[in-house]
Amino acid sequence: MRNNYLFTSESVTEGHPDKIADQISDGILDALLAQDKHSRVACETILTTGIAFVAGEISTKAYVEIPDIVREVIKNVGYGDATWGFDYQTCSVLTSIHNQSSDIAMGVDSGGAGDQGLMFGYATNETAELMPMPIVLAHRLTRRLAEVRKKNILGWVRPDGKSQVTIEYRNGKPVRIDTIVVSTQHSPEISNKVIEREIMDKVIRPVMPKGLYDPTSVKHYINPTGRFVVGGPMGDTGLTGRKIIVDTYGGHGSHGGGAFSGKDPTKVDRSASYMARYIAKNIVAAGLADRCEVQLAYAIGVADPVSVLIDTKGTEKVQTDNLEKVVRKHFPMTPRGIIDHLKLRRPIYRKTAAYGHFGRNEPEFTWEKTDKAKVLRKEVGL
Amino acid sequence: MRNNYLFTSESVTEGHPDKIADQISDGILDALLAQDKHSRVACETILTTGIAFVAGEISTKAYVEIPDIVREVIKNVGYGDATWGFDYQTCSVLTSIHNQSSDIAMGVDSGGAGDQGLMFGYATNETAELMPMPIVLAHRLTRRLAEVRKKNILGWVRPDGKSQVTIEYRNGKPVRIDTIVVSTQHSPEISNKVIEREIMDKVIRPVMPKGLYDPTSVKHYINPTGRFVVGGPMGDTGLTGRKIIVDTYGGHGSHGGGAFSGKDPTKVDRSASYMARYIAKNIVAAGLADRCEVQLAYAIGVADPVSVLIDTKGTEKVQTDNLEKVVRKHFPMTPRGIIDHLKLRRPIYRKTAAYGHFGRNEPEFTWEKTDKAKVLRKEVGL
Ligand SMILES: C[S@@+](CC[C@H](N)C(=O)[O-])C[C@H]1O[C@@H](n2cnc3c(N)ncnc32)[C@H](O)[C@@H]1O
Ligand SMILES: C[S@@+](CC[C@H](N)C(=O)[O-])C[C@H]1O[C@@H](n2cnc3c(N)ncnc32)[C@H](O)[C@@H]1O
Repeated sequence: MRNNYLFTSESVTEGHPDKIADQISDGILDALLAQDKHSRVACETILTTGIAFVAGEISTKAYVEIPDIVREVIKNVGYGDATWGFDYQTCSVLTSIHNQSSDIAMGVDSGGAGDQGLMFGYATNETAELMPMPIVLAHRLTRRLAEVRKKNILGWVRPDGKSQVTIEYRNGKPVRIDTIVVSTQHSPEISNKVIEREIMDKVIRPVMPKGLYDPTSVKHYINPTGRFVVGGPMGDTGLTGRKIIVDTYGGHGSHGGGAFSGKDPTKVDRSASYMARYIAKNIVAAGLADRCEVQLAYAIGVADPVSVLIDTKGTEKVQTDNLEKVVRKHFPMTPRGIIDHLKLRRPIYRKTAAYGHFGRNEPEFTWEKTDKAKVLRKEVGL
Repeated sequence: MRNNYLFTSESVTEGHPDKIADQISDGILDALLAQDKHSRVACETILTTGIAFVAGEISTKAYVEIPDIVREVIKNVGYGDATWGFDYQTCSVLTSIHNQSSDIAMGVDSGGAGDQGLMFGYATNETAELMPMPIVLAHRLTRRLAEVRKKNILGWVRPDGKSQVTIEYRNGKPVRIDTIVVSTQHSPEISNKVIEREIMDKVIRPVMPKGLYDPTSVKHYINPTGRFVVGGPMGDTGLTGRKIIVDTYGGHGSHGGGAFSGKDPTKVDRSASYMARYIAKNIVAAGLADRCEVQLAYAIGVADPVSVLIDTKGTEKVQTDNLEKVVRKHFPMTPRGIIDHLKLRRPIYRKTAAYGHFGRNEPEFTWEKTDKAKVLRKEVGL
């Protein structure tokens, strides 16, 4: 990685169509896990004008009324009025669910991975949450957009919105915000001038860190299209699993391509990504490296990973060949081991489906714990 | 990046449900561009047992019969028999298309980017196509799976399939294949023993490079679940834009999160990713670096990128601060400039929707040309 450069990450609000789809998929998953913690779930959602279509493979002893969950999520997100482009009461909910393929179930029942694939986890000590700065700040802006709307601080803000933050790095450290982009859906009567002023005063200034944010030098793009009244699924078709970089590290580090939402933890796309983050975060928290990326890869039906890669990107304080052995000793990597260690058979997923799966401090986010840092330090003699 | 490590990438066949969805979305895009090259298209597909649902935002002067395109793509991919889990004749095709939001169109009509976002391009001199080795080999296996099926070399192979290749790197170079995973859908009467033998003899051996592949030491996992008769959309719901790492660099380098298929080139998710690859590839082809990654970022409605990052990962042969200026001089980065330079207003996309958007040598893949290498060398005094 270069030392001096600009790096950009983005985030979207819970009212963005792809994120509504993620929340519906995870809402259904949670409802099923609450009744039957061994539910096998792969639940995909597509949203467009007037329609929410839910499809997937589900094997469970639970019974849930899917349309009720769909409507409740859409209501909670804020689409309560058909003139806003989408509305939880009048939209149609279509479902097409079948059982998990018995051929796949066979491999999973015996403890094997629910799919092949590669998964990455990342951590960096550039923020307190051990996350890259650009994605942390991008999420702060979209969270704040939802907050000013829900607390009625800005009555004209509507649910759909996006943010983007460009950070200048010097010597590998974030030193300055270079550019901020905020787009928010709004009611038709509000002028661009008011939008710009109120987003500056009530959204951006209150949440950007003093040390990095100089309002006079930062380039601001606030609703740069000039109009954003049509929003939500009416402006853009939403699908589960289409914000996988917003869900993770904002483009810092690699991604294996697998989505999270709607998937029960026997799917390594989800559970092994959580484990990879847990490993990377504990390595950085232990002071073994400034940055760490972990790649795990699986074969379907096979329990142990086919490859494990720990990459400290030249920032390590100890020899890395040793590190892989130490990690294998202290972190379980089979689907069952991961599920048990991180307590993943619980209805904890809907929360993860907006504002990122990582860098969160709610107690359900067990993969954010740094409880292995001490033993890691001991193992490498620090 | 570490010097000695195992790295894994995967690919899927054109019969994988997510890839059928991509091909349908790009098939519709092509049909529209063929009639009206200024068509604005954002076309998403979801496939599950017996259903193909197409939704999105389309503004065009063209008229196309969407169900015909959907059925033709599914037929071409190989699902012609309902007992295989999906069938182009009997599946239902639902569509829900609306116009592009006039609020977005406003920003795009004036030459601005069709969305905000970050896009990456990557190149490495570890293969002739200047692509990472693991994804190149993973694609070779899935292409070969389709070939033995379509040429009837293996009559029992059915359309859905996946591959995964783990490569050992030493001193940053690929030296050995460590693990190969191949899963293919198959007819019910064939035994696992025959599957294993014929996949070894007719699929893996003929396409793996002699120098890297030692059949006695490589770990092979062939249909590790033990059975894969149920496949396609019946085994797994397919969605457009859910194989974005298979579409790009297999997890080498970063990803911005945007999908390609179904999007006309005013969407920077697609066009700027193609440009970023073109820049990275020309830099490596010019011998300016062994590896190169380019990040571009845009604000919606704004033509120029908000940030440009060229990262040669420490492998550069020239000073990199200079490189950004040189690149800005020779490569257009506005949506219009990119579209013109790479000739993107043509019906060339369906081909891209399986086996990767990069590292291809068909003439339509203009972003793979190395026609800027010479001027780059000259600019840096090589
Ligand atoms: C620009 S849309 C993607 C392109 C769209 N499918 C099309 O056909 O033009 C992506 C996201 O941008 C946001 N968006 C929608 N309308 C917008 C507008 N008028 N101005 C700014 N952002 C907008 C929404 O969050 C939406 O989900
Ligand atoms: C394993 S499925 C994903 C999980 C699935 N949605 C579920 O609910 O279990 C992902 C892909 O694996 C492949 N696949 C499907 N059935 C398989 C089997 N029995 N053995 C190996 N691979 C299979 C297909 O390419 C499919 O699209």
